[in-house]
Amino acid sequence: MRIAVIGATGLVGRKMLELLCKKGFDLFGKIECFASEKSDGKKIKIGGKTFKIKALVEQNLGENYDFALFSAGSEIAKKWAQIFVDKGAYVIDNSSAFRRTGNALVVPEINFKSINSKIIANPNCSTIGASLPIFALSKLGKIKRIIISTYQSVSGAGNKGVNDLKNKINIKFNYQINNNLIPQIDVFLDNGYTFEEDKMNYELNKILNNEIKISTTCVRVPILNCHSESINIEFETKPDIKRVLKALKNQQGITVLDDISKNVYPMPIVANGKSGVFVGRIRQDISNENAINIFVCFDNLLKGASLNAIQIMEKLIENSKNNKK
Amino acid sequence: MRIAVIGATGLVGRKMLELLCKKGFDLFGKIECFASEKSDGKKIKIGGKTFKIKALVEQNLGENYDFALFSAGSEIAKKWAQIFVDKGAYVIDNSSAFRRTGNALVVPEINFKSINSKIIANPNCSTIGASLPIFALSKLGKIKRIIISTYQSVSGAGNKGVNDLKNKINIKFNYQINNNLIPQIDVFLDNGYTFEEDKMNYELNKILNNEIKISTTCVRVPILNCHSESINIEFETKPDIKRVLKALKNQQGITVLDDISKNVYPMPIVANGKSGVFVGRIRQDISNENAINIFVCFDNLLKGASLNAIQIMEKLIENSKNNKK
Repeated sequence: MRIAVIGATGLVGRKMLELLCKKGFDLFGKIECFASEKSDGKKIKIGGKTFKIKALVEQNLGENYDFALFSAGSEIAKKWAQIFVDKGAYVIDNSSAFRRTGNALVVPEINFKSINSKIIANPNCSTIGASLPIFALSKLGKIKRIIISTYQSVSGAGNKGVNDLKNKINIKFNYQINNNLIPQIDVFLDNGYTFEEDKMNYELNKILNNEIKISTTCVRVPILNCHSESINIEFETKPDIKRVLKALKNQQGITVLDDISKNVYPMPIVANGKSGVFVGRIRQDISNENAINIFVCFDNLLKGASLNAIQIMEKLIENSKNNKK
Repeated sequence: MRIAVIGATGLVGRKMLELLCKKGFDLFGKIECFASEKSDGKKIKIGGKTFKIKALVEQNLGENYDFALFSAGSEIAKKWAQIFVDKGAYVIDNSSAFRRTGNALVVPEINFKSINSKIIANPNCSTIGASLPIFALSKLGKIKRIIISTYQSVSGAGNKGVNDLKNKINIKFNYQINNNLIPQIDVFLDNGYTFEEDKMNYELNKILNNEIKISTTCVRVPILNCHSESINIEFETKPDIKRVLKALKNQQGITVLDDISKNVYPMPIVANGKSGVFVGRIRQDISNENAINIFVCFDNLLKGASLNAIQIMEKLIENSKNNKK
């Protein structure tokens, strides 16, 4: 098993390496790390292991790979994905390069079967967190409309985002993020929504193979890691709140944290470093009997990025083993 | 003019003193400061001026007052409001003691005329911020439903809330607030909403003399001062977005900050220390043609508390002058 991690010095790339080691892929296979030329020769320590970074240039590439995990932005993905596919790899890309193309956009608990080529797109972090509860709830009845307001951590903007908050500086974001919030993530579109907000709408419907009407407001908050989302889901008919709870509890990938008698609900300090999407504050909407409110929190670097990619990889490995039997 | 400030050592009480001095009430009248017995004899410096705190006990009270500005919690308000009224004062109370009674709940730009007794309730901070844009928009057509998610600063929880964030401790809140968010403000009710969320629903409709269906999710975020709110407003019929913009711009108390071509929108660093309610991210909701989204930010200690109270007082003074003419 030969795995390439492209963008290994980034926050998501590093989490990918951590997860690969945790899952033993370093023991039974070879992990190669690529990044930009300025990182050539750098070393990354994960646990007791040291990974040497190579510049992503033709001569540093091996002859064949099983998987190439990309987290290096759209431009790199567009340039290098096919090269790795030609060397035999499945490419799982964390950028937006292949999300709106014919490629599958995958949350493995939801639509693994949609994979139709060797290049697979990993969804946007805030999309992944919302997708699991919405998928679980879509089984209860037709969803008419969803309204989301997000509380997104700075790690979603990578190392530079974290540095802005940690050092109380203002390099990555448009404005200071320390002791502030910024109701803009990514660029603005003509309709007044940001591209991040548009991603939630487009990507959720592509993953769910649905046409739900979704309006999102994305907000950066001064939290190092873990995205939260306040989500209002309106069904065509009145949902039974017990069935809502059951559907969420039964959904693989979701951990329900909802006991208001003990002040239990999802929060970044709970979700940080964990695999699941945490869901709580589950309640009937008092403004519309067909709607419910939920509050979601998840580690945007894990399930929102690296973990989702590696779960896709693991499921591909499992499938190929089953096919060989 | 004799003014009593009750709860003068609190965050809101102190802001009241600052505003009273700024507006010259210390020059043309007497300001007396009251707090709990443990603060007796303490001094508060505002600009060049020193205010001495007296314990709130019968023998420390003067014979008559024109205004008593309370920000000392419900119990103190219930016990002392009528005593100050009996000494001739208008009482403007920042607690929840008189918000759901027969007393008027006042945002002076909206419903000053509802004042029906000498005890006047100042609304909850998050309510005041939402009330002005909703009032302005309610003139455009019948509002069917409102969905709000808040981003509330720690100063809304007073000195102790600020200390929790500043010192990275966990005394005031249920959980650490530094590098975290807490999707609970105030206690939970049987319907799964918090009392803070219930306040938004109840108080907004009382102020607007309306029966709008409102669902709110209130979240504490690690920001020292200024509350923000992501608000979705659904009308009975499709609103004209130009008229929406005009209504917001024309509303006294609102400053529209909305130029996405220049990344201009409301943020805590903009609203901090300012009088107005800032509104931006104004856009047609893509999930429902009858709805719009807005993002609101305001200084919760100023317009959300002290300033609103003092604006009520100023309007009462103006009215009494006009009546004498």
